Amino acid sequence: MAKEVTMAIVGATGAVGQEMMKVLAERDFKIDELICLADPREEGTQLKFKDEVITVQKVTEEAFRKADIALFAVGTEISKELAPIAVKNNCVVIDNSYAFRLEEGVPLVVPEVNAEDIKSHKGIIANPNCSTIIMTVAINPIHKEYGLKRVVVSTYQAVSGAGKAGIDELDEHIKAYMKGEEMKPSVFQYPIAFNLIPHIDVFVEHDYTREEMKMVWETRKIMHLLDLKIAATAVRVPVYRSHSESINLETYKPVTPEGVREVLSRAPGVIVQDNPQEKLYPMPLYTSHKDEVFVGRIRKDISTENGIAMWVVADQIRKGAATNAVQIAEIVVKDNLY
Amino acid sequence: MAKEVTMAIVGATGAVGQEMMKVLAERDFKIDELICLADPREEGTQLKFKDEVITVQKVTEEAFRKADIALFAVGTEISKELAPIAVKNNCVVIDNSYAFRLEEGVPLVVPEVNAEDIKSHKGIIANPNCSTIIMTVAINPIHKEYGLKRVVVSTYQAVSGAGKAGIDELDEHIKAYMKGEEMKPSVFQYPIAFNLIPHIDVFVEHDYTREEMKMVWETRKIMHLLDLKIAATAVRVPVYRSHSESINLETYKPVTPEGVREVLSRAPGVIVQDNPQEKLYPMPLYTSHKDEVFVGRIRKDISTENGIAMWVVADQIRKGAATNAVQIAEIVVKDNLY
Repeated sequence: MAKEVTMAIVGATGAVGQEMMKVLAERDFKIDELICLADPREEGTQLKFKDEVITVQKVTEEAFRKADIALFAVGTEISKELAPIAVKNNCVVIDNSYAFRLEEGVPLVVPEVNAEDIKSHKGIIANPNCSTIIMTVAINPIHKEYGLKRVVVSTYQAVSGAGKAGIDELDEHIKAYMKGEEMKPSVFQYPIAFNLIPHIDVFVEHDYTREEMKMVWETRKIMHLLDLKIAATAVRVPVYRSHSESINLETYKPVTPEGVREVLSRAPGVIVQDNPQEKLYPMPLYTSHKDEVFVGRIRKDISTENGIAMWVVADQIRKGAATNAVQIAEIVVKDNLY
Repeated sequence: MAKEVTMAIVGATGAVGQEMMKVLAERDFKIDELICLADPREEGTQLKFKDEVITVQKVTEEAFRKADIALFAVGTEISKELAPIAVKNNCVVIDNSYAFRLEEGVPLVVPEVNAEDIKSHKGIIANPNCSTIIMTVAINPIHKEYGLKRVVVSTYQAVSGAGKAGIDELDEHIKAYMKGEEMKPSVFQYPIAFNLIPHIDVFVEHDYTREEMKMVWETRKIMHLLDLKIAATAVRVPVYRSHSESINLETYKPVTPEGVREVLSRAPGVIVQDNPQEKLYPMPLYTSHKDEVFVGRIRKDISTENGIAMWVVADQIRKGAATNAVQIAEIVVKDNLY
């Protein structure tokens, strides 16, 4: 039987933090004590966890001293500040921010893809970008069988990728639009109701956004394929929850849709939903609040010799963030890596 | 000065028919008489055109005998039935349906791409699929300069692609969702509010939808590139109007984003909106009711040697249907091809 651990969640009141608590409860993670940490302004907030009520504390070194593992669900700057303090106090950090993902020596892990990387951690394990997690779960089994040569992906990303504020803004914009009032953007760059915004995160190199480049940089690190060719286009869509991805990939070995369907049907964390004649394909309205990555519309990419086109959808707050972090924590505990 | 013609619109009361009347008025098309035709149930409906009120008639051979040109904005089956009757009565048909698009001897025309094909018509000129028109206006100038080798496209298609009924269904679904009521789909396969549906038109070959294959078959015919490699994924999104397309293309000659920007900035019917640092890129909320194809996010496809990624948006009822048909009619009149 697994040992019981003391677990901290940093940013417990946010969208991802809240989801982490749900996932810990659902998966019956053996926790001796759950410490909920957040911004001092949230101190005293009461959070439900299983049958308990947990009072939110402000972040202290003392809390990290007590905790064996801390799930970080805060922004990059706060992670950069607090994670080293946790590590110094012998608390293993599983960090959901961008802060450490590309740092050498920090494992960047999707358990279905590179669980073994967790072993080499030096205190911090990074949880990848949501779109990247979803994509790698779907393409890694194909890579193992056929060898990936190139990936072209266009995303359709839900507003909850920007947290609760993103959900609220879509809500407000929908209501404003329906009343014929002005939609005032603050979370997003432009009104998001009945619109599409091809701009997530900031523009970095070659006029790609960082969201797009994360799908390149992080996928390469997770899959240990430093030269994998990837081009991404990331688009925000007026969907509350679950990111969708249209993926065209090329393989070294000859590949067929039947083969990919077979490979994915036995891949961990994947559910194949692919029967066009029965109108069966993944859609964000139906994959939300689920942990798996759903794959459908698997077909030959008719524009290339060895290619596959497919449509991938998953709840980016669950598998794209909270669930993936909890899965990492499960391995840390099981393999006694704390 | 151009001759004045007698023009008929078949399906004048529908979304595309109505838009055709608007476009004819806006472009000040010289019309001696406009005959509005529709289903017998619509007979007597009064439609505004410029300062006139036009009474809708049911379709008769007499009407086609009077008309020099008929713009057809009806379904494939009705086009198949009525277009030959119009042609027999010396009325040139510009047909917006799928009925004749791939028929040998029928020109399939995007004026910015293959206006010269109009000359060879034998009574019917086909107006292409909306997503195809939008894509070809953007990629043809690039082909002329760099030689197109392969196109991978993922679409984000507005509900008005399914006509007024599609708009009404999104409206109803949004309202139902907000009230916590069930969303009942009838136009679309599933609820469309806050959802994405990777299924437009019926499934045909290799598990592609006909909407996806139209972008292959029709693009090849319009561009006279019968072997052009194209793979499309067509997705319905909860946007009222304007289709968007994420396009990754490969060229034979070395290509740069700067070169493509330059080529497109002088291409007919294209507006380049591409300054990421100024948050300038096309979005469907702002391209609606416009005639041009808007292109932005032009950047190197970093996954291939000679490749470009770009984001293309246009009003599919205007340039994707009505405007394109009226442009064809203008050429028919100017070149005296009726």
